[in-house]
Amino acid sequence: MDSPAQIAEHGAMKVNGAHTRTIWLNDDGWSVEVIDQTCLPHRLETLRLVSVEDAARAIATMIVRGAPLIGATAAYGMALAMREDSTDEKLASSARMLLATRPTAVNLRWVVDRLHGILSNTPAAGRNQVAYAQAARICDEDVAINRAIGEHGLALIEQLRRHKRSGPVNILTHCNAGWLATVDWGTALAPIYMAHDAGIDVHVWVDETRPRNQGFSLTAWELHQHGVPHTAVVDNVGGHLMQRGEVDLCITGTDRTTASGDVCNKIGTYLKALAARDNNVPFYVGLPGPSIDWTIEDGIADIPIEERDPLEVTTMSGLSPSGELVSIQLTAHDCPAANFAFDVTPARLITGLITERGVCPATSAGLRSMYPEGARDLDHDG
Amino acid sequence: MDSPAQIAEHGAMKVNGAHTRTIWLNDDGWSVEVIDQTCLPHRLETLRLVSVEDAARAIATMIVRGAPLIGATAAYGMALAMREDSTDEKLASSARMLLATRPTAVNLRWVVDRLHGILSNTPAAGRNQVAYAQAARICDEDVAINRAIGEHGLALIEQLRRHKRSGPVNILTHCNAGWLATVDWGTALAPIYMAHDAGIDVHVWVDETRPRNQGFSLTAWELHQHGVPHTAVVDNVGGHLMQRGEVDLCITGTDRTTASGDVCNKIGTYLKALAARDNNVPFYVGLPGPSIDWTIEDGIADIPIEERDPLEVTTMSGLSPSGELVSIQLTAHDCPAANFAFDVTPARLITGLITERGVCPATSAGLRSMYPEGARDLDHDG
Repeated sequence: MDSPAQIAEHGAMKVNGAHTRTIWLNDDGWSVEVIDQTCLPHRLETLRLVSVEDAARAIATMIVRGAPLIGATAAYGMALAMREDSTDEKLASSARMLLATRPTAVNLRWVVDRLHGILSNTPAAGRNQVAYAQAARICDEDVAINRAIGEHGLALIEQLRRHKRSGPVNILTHCNAGWLATVDWGTALAPIYMAHDAGIDVHVWVDETRPRNQGFSLTAWELHQHGVPHTAVVDNVGGHLMQRGEVDLCITGTDRTTASGDVCNKIGTYLKALAARDNNVPFYVGLPGPSIDWTIEDGIADIPIEERDPLEVTTMSGLSPSGELVSIQLTAHDCPAANFAFDVTPARLITGLITERGVCPATSAGLRSMYPEGARDLDHDG
Repeated sequence: MDSPAQIAEHGAMKVNGAHTRTIWLNDDGWSVEVIDQTCLPHRLETLRLVSVEDAARAIATMIVRGAPLIGATAAYGMALAMREDSTDEKLASSARMLLATRPTAVNLRWVVDRLHGILSNTPAAGRNQVAYAQAARICDEDVAINRAIGEHGLALIEQLRRHKRSGPVNILTHCNAGWLATVDWGTALAPIYMAHDAGIDVHVWVDETRPRNQGFSLTAWELHQHGVPHTAVVDNVGGHLMQRGEVDLCITGTDRTTASGDVCNKIGTYLKALAARDNNVPFYVGLPGPSIDWTIEDGIADIPIEERDPLEVTTMSGLSPSGELVSIQLTAHDCPAANFAFDVTPARLITGLITERGVCPATSAGLRSMYPEGARDLDHDG
């Protein structure tokens, strides 16, 4: 087991025993490398991004995904744009292109607005350098946020362990809010990695997360790489497990959280929160500050829900018997399908939000107590 | 549109425009033909059963599935057994073999016990003929039950239509409780077919129903064959649709219903019932009398939940780009998985049960009012 100091230095995540971030600057000093998450869990491949178009495509096609990693990739996309052409026109068009890739995640808007603001106030000649520095800073901030979420969540898991007579602490998670959704550590999974590294017996129920199966292909893969015991289940199973007392805690991530604590996350999160409430299972959300949208209160009324290509629903990718990555057709040809990517879990169903500043209730007051500056911004807007 | 008399004569279901049951006696007068449901929706193939072993295998491998059709297949399995060897030993061993195939559906036990009882009291020489007659009768009874469920459910849908200002009546269903789960008509889908045939504008949200995808491969297919508008969605979507007012009614089937109205059905049903309750969407269950287990009250405590091969979770079958049926690996090799086939929806979440005798509340009193003879049986057992 690594010491806390070692963990802090080397990061949470091991891949084949070595620490890797999900996004990094290549040795050439300007091009950006990302793990191609569409190849996991079958192949570990990386992709080199050399333009803002590459970055936008990587986000839109979900080569990178997860709200924090989308933000980090967008930041480097702005840097790649400024390296190519540091004019106001390029700055504006790049921001527009990146913002159009995924409508739900608020980190994306936060990052693009932040860089657009800073770069607008920087002379064109200096924009390239400033953009790269900002992108690196956004990545480092994400790592620090997730480490802090992990520490606050670890305290919750320790508490559950103390109250449990025997067996592992069973944690259910939905989609992937792990290392792969962020630059390092993850949001929902950071507390689990820290608990495992601290020697607590944890076991994770991994929801498949149709249609794109991020649970099976990403969460199960990264838990396996780090040696955390887990069991893959289809999305229909969580309620049954909770009814039978097989879940001690749910933790998910969030793509956007309203000022009142409504959480917009991967489609299906709401159903698990309902089951948790019905069975008195605590339901927590790992919440990085940049995922809060202080401008809205009512998640159901105000968050646009991305609808993606129905082909993601009617087909599925995996490894063929001969070892190739193939896509198979699940429905009859031309079966009509709809593909909603997110849903909203009302704050009333959430036990608490695990932020980088501590755990708070999913309420306006709870969020204001953690982020007084965010609340002030909201008051100004109002 | 067919007239009610035509529908009654030809059955609900059209396949390529012609009426077919899911199970029938071949022209040889003894072997049994079933639709191989593992090939749908990609290929329509049938399989000839010539022995009780064939029937047991067809049930265990889900070539046939759905509580009523499992019962019908088991009945013909007993007939095939008696044709081969009408001794007491064969009778007992065949009953045991069939009962062991699927532990959750109660129709299976009901059918096997019924035939075992009747055949035990029949001289060996007459068992063959009696068994075939009983199997045919069980099939015809199932058709009559489902037609009656359809008529009672149709009245509910007509009521919803009257209260709706515009657009279709949107109905969400989970798994397949359609024609393919029964001998004809279906349970949950019978009201939908009748509403469609009566000219009511209905639209069905079809849950995928992982891990075996009965929604996509069976429900969407049979709705398409009959011309009922539908949209395929993954299992995670129902809650979101209900939050947004896109579901007017949920109807599912049941594999076993307790005397108090708890419903054991395909895994994931419970999650949809929770979402329906949270959004004031009526949640009904199409309930054939033989699916009631009068011997138990508490579904969560007393119904054994079948656990199937984890390979059904970590792999998926479909049509390859070259048109072959292939199975692909979804998770990393050796990823641990669990495969619970059913869950229990507590009676408190169910708006009503649509039985062949009418609609009743999901309560002991409701069920006793519909089935006084069943309640008497229970009193005797107690």
